[in-house]
Amino acid sequence: MDAMRLVILGAAGRMGRTLVRLAHEAPDLTVAAALERPGSLALGSDAGQLAGAGHLGVPVTDDLDAALAAGDGVIDFTAPAASVFLARETARRGLVHVIGTTGCSAADDEAIAAAGAQGARIVKSGNMSLGVNLLSVLVEQAARALGPDAFDIEILEMHHRHKVDAPSGTALLLGRAAAEGRGIDLAETSVRVRDGHTGPRAAGTIGFATLRGGSVVGDHDVILAGEGERITLSHHAEDRAIFARGALRAALWARNRPPGLYSMRDVLGL
Amino acid sequence: MDAMRLVILGAAGRMGRTLVRLAHEAPDLTVAAALERPGSLALGSDAGQLAGAGHLGVPVTDDLDAALAAGDGVIDFTAPAASVFLARETARRGLVHVIGTTGCSAADDEAIAAAGAQGARIVKSGNMSLGVNLLSVLVEQAARALGPDAFDIEILEMHHRHKVDAPSGTALLLGRAAAEGRGIDLAETSVRVRDGHTGPRAAGTIGFATLRGGSVVGDHDVILAGEGERITLSHHAEDRAIFARGALRAALWARNRPPGLYSMRDVLGL
Amino acid sequence: MDAMRLVILGAAGRMGRTLVRLAHEAPDLTVAAALERPGSLALGSDAGQLAGAGHLGVPVTDDLDAALAAGDGVIDFTAPAASVFLARETARRGLVHVIGTTGCSAADDEAIAAAGAQGARIVKSGNMSLGVNLLSVLVEQAARALGPDAFDIEILEMHHRHKVDAPSGTALLLGRAAAEGRGIDLAETSVRVRDGHTGPRAAGTIGFATLRGGSVVGDHDVILAGEGERITLSHHAEDRAIFARGALRAALWARNRPPGLYSMRDVLGL
Amino acid sequence: MDAMRLVILGAAGRMGRTLVRLAHEAPDLTVAAALERPGSLALGSDAGQLAGAGHLGVPVTDDLDAALAAGDGVIDFTAPAASVFLARETARRGLVHVIGTTGCSAADDEAIAAAGAQGARIVKSGNMSLGVNLLSVLVEQAARALGPDAFDIEILEMHHRHKVDAPSGTALLLGRAAAEGRGIDLAETSVRVRDGHTGPRAAGTIGFATLRGGSVVGDHDVILAGEGERITLSHHAEDRAIFARGALRAALWARNRPPGLYSMRDVLGL
Repeated sequence: MDAMRLVILGAAGRMGRTLVRLAHEAPDLTVAAALERPGSLALGSDAGQLAGAGHLGVPVTDDLDAALAAGDGVIDFTAPAASVFLARETARRGLVHVIGTTGCSAADDEAIAAAGAQGARIVKSGNMSLGVNLLSVLVEQAARALGPDAFDIEILEMHHRHKVDAPSGTALLLGRAAAEGRGIDLAETSVRVRDGHTGPRAAGTIGFATLRGGSVVGDHDVILAGEGERITLSHHAEDRAIFARGALRAALWARNRPPGLYSMRDVLGL
Repeated sequence: MDAMRLVILGAAGRMGRTLVRLAHEAPDLTVAAALERPGSLALGSDAGQLAGAGHLGVPVTDDLDAALAAGDGVIDFTAPAASVFLARETARRGLVHVIGTTGCSAADDEAIAAAGAQGARIVKSGNMSLGVNLLSVLVEQAARALGPDAFDIEILEMHHRHKVDAPSGTALLLGRAAAEGRGIDLAETSVRVRDGHTGPRAAGTIGFATLRGGSVVGDHDVILAGEGERITLSHHAEDRAIFARGALRAALWARNRPPGLYSMRDVLGL
Repeated sequence: MDAMRLVILGAAGRMGRTLVRLAHEAPDLTVAAALERPGSLALGSDAGQLAGAGHLGVPVTDDLDAALAAGDGVIDFTAPAASVFLARETARRGLVHVIGTTGCSAADDEAIAAAGAQGARIVKSGNMSLGVNLLSVLVEQAARALGPDAFDIEILEMHHRHKVDAPSGTALLLGRAAAEGRGIDLAETSVRVRDGHTGPRAAGTIGFATLRGGSVVGDHDVILAGEGERITLSHHAEDRAIFARGALRAALWARNRPPGLYSMRDVLGL
Repeated sequence: MDAMRLVILGAAGRMGRTLVRLAHEAPDLTVAAALERPGSLALGSDAGQLAGAGHLGVPVTDDLDAALAAGDGVIDFTAPAASVFLARETARRGLVHVIGTTGCSAADDEAIAAAGAQGARIVKSGNMSLGVNLLSVLVEQAARALGPDAFDIEILEMHHRHKVDAPSGTALLLGRAAAEGRGIDLAETSVRVRDGHTGPRAAGTIGFATLRGGSVVGDHDVILAGEGERITLSHHAEDRAIFARGALRAALWARNRPPGLYSMRDVLGL
């Protein structure tokens, strides 16, 4: 099969440049177009050179129609409004549309699902890493198999010193997976602070703990602690490029699927 | 429902005493009989007192028929020949038969399966811990989802200084689960020694590493290492009682199943 | 040299029974006397049988004078008032006095130090484990060598589900060691809660995080996280007997020291 | 004080470019000259642009005399012969000379030490990371405090799939530190392979285990495992830049020292 032709959105940003570099390196992918906002200082520059991947002959453009016409799929780590708008365009053209955009409202998600129903092959996830998505599936199963009477669930995360919120979005995603496995509501059962006299641990709760320091990209541990034994399911990220890698794998996976809205779990075959 | 009446084999041994103590503590279980070999010095002693659980009024006996007549199920951590013999007896009486015996031959396993077909409700596993059995299921899935082109699998175990073989049986069990997930043969792909000039890691292999020291009961890590990220699935045993606990849970689970041969994965609902 | 003769206080309690058993097993120690409170139901029972160590011929007694007359040293995990009272007695007789009692006031500590000056050879620590005491020395050095401009310090602990306070006393002990190494005050620099919008990590602070679950005896990690690298110094307790083991080692160490007040750091030669 | 002026050797290589970038970013350092071999294609290019740090106005040169005349110190990750030659030059000029070169013979080390005696301020180490050097000091102390009768030492390392030898040089460095702490010879006591029937662990040995996979930069654990407790001392490298960072810190530290040969332990104040 010919290499899949990708349109990279936000091609001059940090994620965009990583996507350009990795897509260029992948034998079954090619960078067909590189988009930036009208007015961007990067317009006209070679996308490969911006990405440190050498000259690709793909100038950064703001011409969406021309870009989409040249591609089989779109990689989109942008903003909710842009992703919703774009989903209509990819639906109209029957393109693959990989959405790593975060912060979508319920209405945004509905509009994106509608695009899937109308012809786009969409893969959307709040975290595009293969590892984190796999972990969330495993956590859900473990939480289901090892019930709250016997096993306590704790979620630990560590990130670099510049992170301004806690717990991390990924820790909460893993917490939701655990709650799903137990058929409970995370908001009602999570314990996010322990200090001073806490009393004994309440059965069935899900505890969170946060570490901050150095330049840690992102570590997550989900612990299921029972009488005499402990299961720990962990993800360690070395590098933010894992999100780009997951998005590219999702694009290749979606290439020959029927139109619809897919998740990274589908991509992983789980 | 009435408490399930259990017959504990080898009731004066270390595992037997743990089983007696934990079965006595469980609200839905009761110790109906405690067996030892003819000639055992423990015959006639109270099984509860041997177990440090107080007087139970259950003297250790060598009368198998009377013991089986008093029970709903049998917990059997003995030897292959004894387990095979016993499976015929539990089949004849339609009892639950939980087998934690190790070292069974293929012929032994066939005879045990036949008993399952003839009326016994058998749960058999080489490792009765809930956690290890769950972990092996998760490892198989992870190995399938994260393929050998992108993710390398390594298995690390640590045990106390007295252990005389390496890697541990549980490490090999986890290795087989990973190989199963990848559809490969463990014996052909495992790397069990690395020292000196090894050359680069061959894709698709499964590496083993062994630590020994102190009084460590048993730690196992299965690592899936890819470009920029790592998944680690771990089991930490604090206490050998986890095998007894798993066996008791298996007995309760099997109580209302149809006759047959089950695994701990069935007990876990996986 | 003859085996050291020990007097075990609270010999019928959990720690006392562990001390009796381990002292009996050690070739260079012997149980000379076993004390309990007047009125204890254990008075007159054999201390060895209570401890599951077989008959020792040492009945539990409440006769302090006779007990002290029979011993070279006293192991004392009791209460502040009892330890202060006892320190005067051990001073008068020139005995070794190992104190694992917690909760002593400044006045208690002064009285105990005075006993050291008057003839007792006292080893006192809030945590008698060799490993934790070593770790606190290493943490202090690491915190000094890797300064607050470059390395962030985080302290993580996990304990069983029944623990009612957070962070653990040992986590705070390690935090004080880190603060000591940095020449700062722990109370002013510790961050004990992170939830919601926290802002970036303030340089020079020491963060704490707490996990609770299962039957975990006690795990502690001290993390020093810098740009591109991380040091983690960890202690994992399998068994509460490590406190008894440390106390017995302290007694042997103190046997030939001059009178005075010593710490576990002295015992470790650090 | 004025910023320290550094001469970067091998300025067009991977380590050299990292050194140029980090020295440029540090407020108390400046890149005074950038050297490459005669004939290098990089001669004449701007060292900053090669390093991705923007135009610095420092062209890569092969004129050693001019470069040394412009600097207060030299950062040298080259080859043994080059480092020995250079040590005479830095001695003659009284410069700081940080040597991260590996593979030096005993004769090379003597020649370098002689340069320290004759006027250079040399810091030399086989591993320039602050964390690893600190860890080796802590390991030595821990191995001394927790003796071989009670605590077993194990060393675990994990590196990326491309590494061709095992165990890593850093694992061996940590092993030597442990052996030093115990007053034993590493070669005689190390156990580098465990497979099949190993028999029980011999007291006093130091075990090594190796993991390989993914893109792991370098993880090292030193475990001291005793009865009922375990100490683990770990280093996790995210990024090869830690070696450059350590070298730059060493240069600043050495600036006002008397001539001599120093180690990274001196830099850390240990």
